[in-house]
Amino acid sequence: MKFEIEIWFGDLDALGHVNNVQYARFLETARVKFFYENFGDLKPFFVLRRIEMDYLSPLFMGDIAVVEMWVGEIGNTSWEFLYRITEKRSGREVMRARSIQVWMDKERNKKAPIPERVRRVLEAERR
Amino acid sequence: MKFEIEIWFGDLDALGHVNNVQYARFLETARVKFFYENFGDLKPFFVLRRIEMDYLSPLFMGDIAVVEMWVGEIGNTSWEFLYRITEKRSGREVMRARSIQVWMDKERNKKAPIPERVRRVLEAERR
Amino acid sequence: MKFEIEIWFGDLDALGHVNNVQYARFLETARVKFFYENFGDLKPFFVLRRIEMDYLSPLFMGDIAVVEMWVGEIGNTSWEFLYRITEKRSGREVMRARSIQVWMDKERNKKAPIPERVRRVLEAERR
Amino acid sequence: MKFEIEIWFGDLDALGHVNNVQYARFLETARVKFFYENFGDLKPFFVLRRIEMDYLSPLFMGDIAVVEMWVGEIGNTSWEFLYRITEKRSGREVMRARSIQVWMDKERNKKAPIPERVRRVLEAERR
Repeated sequence: MKFEIEIWFGDLDALGHVNNVQYARFLETARVKFFYENFGDLKPFFVLRRIEMDYLSPLFMGDIAVVEMWVGEIGNTSWEFLYRITEKRSGREVMRARSIQVWMDKERNKKAPIPERVRRVLEAERR
Repeated sequence: MKFEIEIWFGDLDALGHVNNVQYARFLETARVKFFYENFGDLKPFFVLRRIEMDYLSPLFMGDIAVVEMWVGEIGNTSWEFLYRITEKRSGREVMRARSIQVWMDKERNKKAPIPERVRRVLEAERR
Repeated sequence: MKFEIEIWFGDLDALGHVNNVQYARFLETARVKFFYENFGDLKPFFVLRRIEMDYLSPLFMGDIAVVEMWVGEIGNTSWEFLYRITEKRSGREVMRARSIQVWMDKERNKKAPIPERVRRVLEAERR
Repeated sequence: MKFEIEIWFGDLDALGHVNNVQYARFLETARVKFFYENFGDLKPFFVLRRIEMDYLSPLFMGDIAVVEMWVGEIGNTSWEFLYRITEKRSGREVMRARSIQVWMDKERNKKAPIPERVRRVLEAERR
C-alpha cells in the first residue's frame, strides 16, 4: 500500500525538520490503514513486537511524504512489514523501516497462529 | 543515566496502553537529558541514524517508566546508545532499544570524527 | 480557507475518540497553511495570545474532519481567527473555535501594528 | 492541586519554545491526576465542553512548569476548572486557562446531575 502525508508545522521539532518520533506515527498510520482497508469489520488482534527505523534524509515543512508498506517474511504467529518513505517532489529517500507483529489469541492473551483469512491478505501484499 | 517518567492519559492510545510511538519520545528525552547534563552550553551536533525498539510488555496509566540509557560501541564518527525501560513497581521489563548517532560537521553538513571532549563523556558512560 | 484531515488511530485517546488536545493541532495547521499559502517567503511574526475551543461532538477513526478558518475582528496589533470543524459525511458540527494573534516587531520583541500587506490579506478573508 | 512538569525537547516546536498545543496536554494531565487521586476506582464519566487558554509567556527547554488547577463555578450538570501555569525558577506567569466539563449518564449518553460524591470533592477544591 502507498499513501501520502503532507508535512506541517506540528510535525517539526526545534531543529526545524520532522521530529524523529513522528516517523513512528507515519508507520503506525500505514499499519492501521492496511487493516482498516483490508478487513473493515474484523478487529485484528496483534501486538507490535519490534520496530527498526533508518533515518536517511530529513523532511521539512511543505514536503509530501510518500509512505509505502508491504509484507516481508510470514511465520506461523508473526510477520514482517517493510516500509519506505520518500519525498514526493524530489524522490529523495527519507526512511527505510521494518516492524514485526505477533498475532494474538485475544481470550488467552497469548500468541496464536495467524488465521487463514489474515494470512491470505498478507501473502497478497508480499514482495 | 537513569530517570523516571510517570505515565498519564496522554500517553495512551485507543487500546488503553502506552502508544508505540510514545516510546520513541522516551528515548529522545534520554538522549536530550544526556547532552543537556553533560555539556550544558556546548550544542552537540549529531544526527540520529537508526532506532531499534523491542516492545516487551505494555505500560498503563499510573505506571512509572524507569528509563536507562548507556553507551555501547563507539566508532570514529558514530556511536551506539542502548536503552532499557522497566516498570518501577513490578520491575517488569518493558522495552530494550538501541540507537545509532552520527557526529556532524555543522558547517559542511557532513559526518565528522567525534570530538575528544564528547568521546571522553561517551567512554565514561560505556557498559 | 477550508481543508480536510483524515482521522487515524494516532489521533485517538483511550476513550476511542479524537483526543481533546489534537483539536488544537488541527487549528494550528489551519493557521500555518493560511500563512504558507498567502505569504510564502514572508515569515510572519506573530504570537498566539488566546485560544477558545467548544467541543460539540466527537470524531472517530475513519472520519474526515473539514476544518474551516476565517478572519473575525482586526485591531491595530491583533486579530481574530474563527474556526469551524465539521465531519464530512454526516455534516455534523464538531467544534467551534476562536484564537487571537498579536503581530510582533521581531527585533524589539514587542507587539507592533499589523503591516499593510498582512492587513490586506486578513481583510480579504474576513466574514 | 499542583504539580510540576519538566520541559524537554519533545515539547518544543520549530520556534524553539513549547508548542501551543502541548499546553492543552498539560491541562489534560491536571484533570486526569485530579480524578485519579480523588476517586481511584470510580471511573468518572464526563465530557470536556470548552477550553480557554491565555498564553502569557513562553516556556523553554530546561524550564519547570508548575501547573495549578482548582474548581470554579459548580452547576447542576457542569463545572469549571481553572488553571494557572508558572515557571518554577522565575515565578513567571505562563498561562491562565479555564475548562468546562459536563457530567454524563453513561448508559443514556446524556448530561446528568453531578453525583453527590463527586460534588463534595469539587466543593473541597473550590477557590
